[in-house]
Amino acid sequence: MPLSAYWLRDNCPCTECRDPRNGQKLFQITDLPGDLAIAEQAEEDGVLAVRWSDGHRSRYPVEWLTGTGAGDDRTEQGKRLWEAADFPAGRPGADWDAYLADPAQRTAVLAAVRDVGFAVLRGVPALERQVLEVARDFGYVRETNYGELFDVRVEPDPNNLAFTSAAIAPHTDNPYRDPVPTLQLLHCLRNDATGGDSGLVDGFRAAALLREEAPEDFAVLTGTPVPFAFRDRRSELRAERPLIEVDALGRIREVRFNNRSIGTLRLPAAELDAFYAAYRRFARITLRPELQLTFRLVPGDCLVFDNTRLLHARTAFAQDGHRHLQGCYADLDSLASTLAVLERRAAALDALERMFAGEGLGEYLGEEVTMAEHMLQAGASAEAAGAPAHLVAAALLHDVGHFGGSGLRLMQGQDNRHSHTGADWLARWFGPEVTEPVRLHVAAKRYLCAVEPDYRARLSEASEYTLRVQGGPMDAAEAAAFAALAGAEEAVAVRRWDDQAKVAGAPTPSFAHFRPLLERLMA
Amino acid sequence: MPLSAYWLRDNCPCTECRDPRNGQKLFQITDLPGDLAIAEQAEEDGVLAVRWSDGHRSRYPVEWLTGTGAGDDRTEQGKRLWEAADFPAGRPGADWDAYLADPAQRTAVLAAVRDVGFAVLRGVPALERQVLEVARDFGYVRETNYGELFDVRVEPDPNNLAFTSAAIAPHTDNPYRDPVPTLQLLHCLRNDATGGDSGLVDGFRAAALLREEAPEDFAVLTGTPVPFAFRDRRSELRAERPLIEVDALGRIREVRFNNRSIGTLRLPAAELDAFYAAYRRFARITLRPELQLTFRLVPGDCLVFDNTRLLHARTAFAQDGHRHLQGCYADLDSLASTLAVLERRAAALDALERMFAGEGLGEYLGEEVTMAEHMLQAGASAEAAGAPAHLVAAALLHDVGHFGGSGLRLMQGQDNRHSHTGADWLARWFGPEVTEPVRLHVAAKRYLCAVEPDYRARLSEASEYTLRVQGGPMDAAEAAAFAALAGAEEAVAVRRWDDQAKVAGAPTPSFAHFRPLLERLMA
Repeated sequence: MPLSAYWLRDNCPCTECRDPRNGQKLFQITDLPGDLAIAEQAEEDGVLAVRWSDGHRSRYPVEWLTGTGAGDDRTEQGKRLWEAADFPAGRPGADWDAYLADPAQRTAVLAAVRDVGFAVLRGVPALERQVLEVARDFGYVRETNYGELFDVRVEPDPNNLAFTSAAIAPHTDNPYRDPVPTLQLLHCLRNDATGGDSGLVDGFRAAALLREEAPEDFAVLTGTPVPFAFRDRRSELRAERPLIEVDALGRIREVRFNNRSIGTLRLPAAELDAFYAAYRRFARITLRPELQLTFRLVPGDCLVFDNTRLLHARTAFAQDGHRHLQGCYADLDSLASTLAVLERRAAALDALERMFAGEGLGEYLGEEVTMAEHMLQAGASAEAAGAPAHLVAAALLHDVGHFGGSGLRLMQGQDNRHSHTGADWLARWFGPEVTEPVRLHVAAKRYLCAVEPDYRARLSEASEYTLRVQGGPMDAAEAAAFAALAGAEEAVAVRRWDDQAKVAGAPTPSFAHFRPLLERLMA
Repeated sequence: MPLSAYWLRDNCPCTECRDPRNGQKLFQITDLPGDLAIAEQAEEDGVLAVRWSDGHRSRYPVEWLTGTGAGDDRTEQGKRLWEAADFPAGRPGADWDAYLADPAQRTAVLAAVRDVGFAVLRGVPALERQVLEVARDFGYVRETNYGELFDVRVEPDPNNLAFTSAAIAPHTDNPYRDPVPTLQLLHCLRNDATGGDSGLVDGFRAAALLREEAPEDFAVLTGTPVPFAFRDRRSELRAERPLIEVDALGRIREVRFNNRSIGTLRLPAAELDAFYAAYRRFARITLRPELQLTFRLVPGDCLVFDNTRLLHARTAFAQDGHRHLQGCYADLDSLASTLAVLERRAAALDALERMFAGEGLGEYLGEEVTMAEHMLQAGASAEAAGAPAHLVAAALLHDVGHFGGSGLRLMQGQDNRHSHTGADWLARWFGPEVTEPVRLHVAAKRYLCAVEPDYRARLSEASEYTLRVQGGPMDAAEAAAFAALAGAEEAVAVRRWDDQAKVAGAPTPSFAHFRPLLERLMA
């Protein structure tokens, strides 16, 4: 496979090139020599080793070299475009309590917003301002000239059609804003008027239909920046964007559709004719009954939807009852981030579960228990002692740095610094209350050997061996410094559970027993 | 001039088609018939009158027909692209106190951000969280995973290079966020370390240079979506956007440039080579010394800049002193809105000043004072009586509905409803505390005639004439209803100043005297 030299070097994963904590690059592209080339390359054990013309060395997992892109979260690529009949099992969503309690439910709701553009949370307390709490669960409220939130209900002096009882055709909100709020939430507090049902149309689907049925009209709409405007006494918002925005690769990326706030387009008459023909065709597509998913929001429902994709609508309602929604805006990037973190956490727990069930069955450094048994026993001891959740987790995971084959190197007389490796790896998901006792559990052994005369004598043979590799007992100054650490006491506690967890054949709980506790600690 | 029928109809300004309060359209484009045509058109007195094939009638000022677009606030169009030498008189900006006190200074600062991409406010109190107050003066803070604000200073465990003392090459912030925060503020609280100077590069200028010098590289960068990524324990942000984004017309619109957070591009090797060649060329342009404006932020300076356009940089600094900036993100659209409102207010004051100096010199409805003298005298009476500012303004402006030639129609026996016309027009800039006494000042006359026996007898001849056109004295029920209005008392006060303001030859202050008061009331 031919490799692009600058690309390969720009992706060097070594800690000199890239901060291991956050993955940020530590050099500028202009720092690389103008004649950069691969001086030497060799593949071994699934790793491509490269020596560069400037002397730098890089190592790349071959698996990474042949990987594909993560995909794009904002364009039509990877999304599920839909029509009304595509939800025979009902609208995607969850009960609010289940959403809060269960990461799998939360993941499903946020993934629905990413993939189909919306989800409905049910049973959200029908309280004023509660919609802000929903938005803050997965992101940040985007404050606008309407305030932090807005009320949709009949108002005595409406400054916007949304605040009257008229029907509203499918549209996106705030097209006159740039950047447009990418996410909208509508929380139903009361809905006992006749009418006032909600409708959603997949604007990406409508745009894709236009592309299929009239590619020249699609080209006109994607190629014509349209001015949108809104003004009242305190604001004068203007944006100039196409009705359908495609990215550099031609993928549908954003739909802005709101006849109410289209301003005056200034083009030669023939181009205006072409634009209006295309615009009218697209508008007619958005009104096709088979595209519109219609439903009724009931108090407690909170609709979350992608305002760059979905058009929302409302049927007229009679003033024979009250209808009150509270809404706010937020952004898709934070929702996507929350979703990615949830997915990453689930993947990490799966990986740990696989480690305990696979590599964990291996011998624990010469003891008569497996690595999995050792760690599960340590976690169980912490739990039995009534330790707080973070110390149960620390005890359970204290030796995770041994995984990945490095335990062997320790037994060959080379300190694998497994306490640090483990703590660093865990820090991707857990806070310092979990990682720091893990980091210090080896130091705690060296400390106890120094301050507790009979402690060393009680060490197992293997532990006595590794003690020497790890630097032997602390001297008095080291021990005093250790004791002064804020985390010393918790590290010593974890160490004692570690030392006890070598009982051959003792019944131990499974990893699954600890998973909910780990899940909560990650959140 | 050929006219596009649907375009023309979509822009019909009548109150049936468009809400006069906010300019929002009251119909959908699909409501128009498929065979819409102009049935008849005629131009008279600068107005094009159109009768449509569906019977609707529209009237368009000819001036509007031939107008041009308002321009685009986000692309290179209309902006001033710059190099370092283009600021011989120093950086655009203002002292914070002057900015707060003087709308002209505020306008200049915000216009600089729009036109050159940045401005510096000086003397902003060097207090924690003050940067949020600056942002809120013209817009809304965009909260992110870094919080509502972020501190830029040396931190014990940096999770971002910005929080160390290393030099940072020109870059934009948060390219891994979509929508990216379009505005950044950096407020200097302390800067006594050696080094740590700030640099700004106009990314639009750099991109325009690339387009001039290597159009094929420009095409590669505008045509290649690039993945950006940031991850820490609680976030995993990804965006896929080109380094240089152009709009549908090819205008430069956004620059994203941040080697630290560029992720792994996945393309065939030849395309990667082309991308990296273009990227490296662009990166070298951004480093040209003549492009970089370098300066030192001192405590109290707050730099406000366009994060979709300007690259910012920092020289390294020694740890021989403290450097502490607080920053936050916000968005350009709200800044542009605030600027447009300021410009609109200044234009309204200018228009009023012209009215007083022009049309205002005309006869006041048969009285021996001009319209301008009448209104200035009413304003002066209110002021002399120690009335609050909003009533001085109401008295000064109470007859503004007569302007525009409609006063004549009143004298021809047709009520021009000038109190309502005036109040509605004023409502574009003033709150109800000013507009409602104006709206009620005619009703107040009819009320006083009903409840104050000698009031009517004291009316001038012209006022007695218009009273009859306006409906004559109120009956008892009408008077009781009027008296019950919350604003009745203030309307009566304005009415009395109105009645007194007909003194031929009395010295009156000029409109300029009242302008600062009106300016404050508009804010």
